Amino acid sequence: MAGTERNTARGEFALIDGILKPLAAGTPAALGLTDDAAVLTPAKGKDLVLTKDAMVAGVHFRESDMPGDIARKLLRVNLSDLAAMGAEPVGYLLATFWPEALPLSWIQEFADGLGQDQEEFGIGLLGGDTVRTPGPLSLSLTAIGEVAKEKALRRNGAGAGDLIVVSGTIGDGALGLLALQEELADLDPTEQEYLEDRYHLPNPRLSLGQALVGRATSCIDISDGLIADIGHIAEESGLAAVIQWKKVPLSDAAKIAVESDDALVERVLTGGDDYELAFTLPLDQRDDLVKLAKEGGVSLAIIGEMVEGEGVRVMQEEGVEMPISSSGWQHF
Amino acid sequence: MAGTERNTARGEFALIDGILKPLAAGTPAALGLTDDAAVLTPAKGKDLVLTKDAMVAGVHFRESDMPGDIARKLLRVNLSDLAAMGAEPVGYLLATFWPEALPLSWIQEFADGLGQDQEEFGIGLLGGDTVRTPGPLSLSLTAIGEVAKEKALRRNGAGAGDLIVVSGTIGDGALGLLALQEELADLDPTEQEYLEDRYHLPNPRLSLGQALVGRATSCIDISDGLIADIGHIAEESGLAAVIQWKKVPLSDAAKIAVESDDALVERVLTGGDDYELAFTLPLDQRDDLVKLAKEGGVSLAIIGEMVEGEGVRVMQEEGVEMPISSSGWQHF
Repeated sequence: MAGTERNTARGEFALIDGILKPLAAGTPAALGLTDDAAVLTPAKGKDLVLTKDAMVAGVHFRESDMPGDIARKLLRVNLSDLAAMGAEPVGYLLATFWPEALPLSWIQEFADGLGQDQEEFGIGLLGGDTVRTPGPLSLSLTAIGEVAKEKALRRNGAGAGDLIVVSGTIGDGALGLLALQEELADLDPTEQEYLEDRYHLPNPRLSLGQALVGRATSCIDISDGLIADIGHIAEESGLAAVIQWKKVPLSDAAKIAVESDDALVERVLTGGDDYELAFTLPLDQRDDLVKLAKEGGVSLAIIGEMVEGEGVRVMQEEGVEMPISSSGWQHF
Repeated sequence: MAGTERNTARGEFALIDGILKPLAAGTPAALGLTDDAAVLTPAKGKDLVLTKDAMVAGVHFRESDMPGDIARKLLRVNLSDLAAMGAEPVGYLLATFWPEALPLSWIQEFADGLGQDQEEFGIGLLGGDTVRTPGPLSLSLTAIGEVAKEKALRRNGAGAGDLIVVSGTIGDGALGLLALQEELADLDPTEQEYLEDRYHLPNPRLSLGQALVGRATSCIDISDGLIADIGHIAEESGLAAVIQWKKVPLSDAAKIAVESDDALVERVLTGGDDYELAFTLPLDQRDDLVKLAKEGGVSLAIIGEMVEGEGVRVMQEEGVEMPISSSGWQHF
């Protein structure tokens, strides 16, 4: 109960707050974390984009993961949601549920990871809450971004005939998790490591998302799995999506993995954790892709098109549909 | 790991989302929870106020508490932070960490509690995340409000000679917790129940907070305890606070409790969980208090004044300082 917490944990909370407080130093809206809330003056002509993700040790990351990596992934999966809406990140609020046993040095490394990514993405801590839990380390982050008024990228704007485009390479996150679980033992250590890194530290495609504003007809980040996420676009747009398996961009490591084990194809298509962007583009803007890839700082690949109908079909080759048993992961 | 979660919990997550989704139905900014984030168009001439609180079963509430009460308290403690800044609530994001054993009927009651308070406070769900935890039920809520540009109430504006004013009655929350812990057995059941209700369901003083904008020189909600929270105002304003114990407003139940046990005085002053507002008002605005109480829909009491110096002193009577061993609870 709160009463007990009051008496025992006070000094330690002050120490944790001392570790987290510097993360708000560069964010005037945080008011130095001295007040009951942050006060943000919205930029003129902008909408605010708000997203919140939660992670639990043993469920969404491994307790043995590096504290800094956990922190950065937490931040980056939220930034990826902002990227998918075409937003530029502004700041974030953080709720941390700390187990008793976690040493302050662990929390310091966690904060250092956040600090590193704050610099990388030009954002700062706005506020939050620190509590104690008898359960596993749990985290919740609310990220806030800005996008030109009424210009946020949505899932529901795709048109029939639009090209389906993805950034980067697909499947690395899911294969990286398998590698961490030692289920890709045949793969060279270098390739395993590449995939594991991709799993641990996604790259939110913020520049690409912002470049897509006013151009893409729909956009989503690939967190649930390529098929599930393109399925979201299809469903919200009232259309079907047809994906050509042979056009889905794979990293060298993923190619080798898939070539050595056919069963991994489905994992690549449904596994999630890629945090690349999938978006739709009118056919007549096909020539813009080179420019968009440059602005986004990431390769882009046309993998299919939107058609009348519903659902997602993956074509193994011309006229041959691939059977998929599970479409991936859906969440709130 | 995420992979396991994918395979086992998917259907159940869809059911939980089905329970929570209607909470976003009246909030256009939530986009029906169909997209990667919410998109909020800020009102003209307003600043946004952002706050985030976290709660854990067994730490911040009892596992046996009513699900609807837990939900409403979670929302209300955040709204109380908005009240302390003078903000009008706009909406909220919710992260829920559900233990395996929790039945869907429990989650439905939790959602019903949120729905009830959404109507009461004219707000809606903007988005969030639903995850599974092997630990206790954990919750994090981010509340968003609006206040006239640069007019948010702060803690740092009190002047020497300002009156210290509190709303409602003080100490009920802390005594309510004691009653729940069966430590106030001498008290009548009716009084115990009154105090327990005050602990379970705080009333965020939103109307009062908004009425104080442009009038109060500082404001805070009493969550950590009267002395600790007025201490925050004193510290941020670079002043000391002198409180007259005899002017601290007590409910009838609290009066009876304190009369029967002197030791409870300190609990009233340091216990927290009141979620009343404490604010400072220039002496020459003393006559506005009647009007402010009317606008705020709550009684107001002058309990002391700000003076040069530092710290918080509580006077038992004229010239006699009360010894206080612990000033209350501080958090991030």
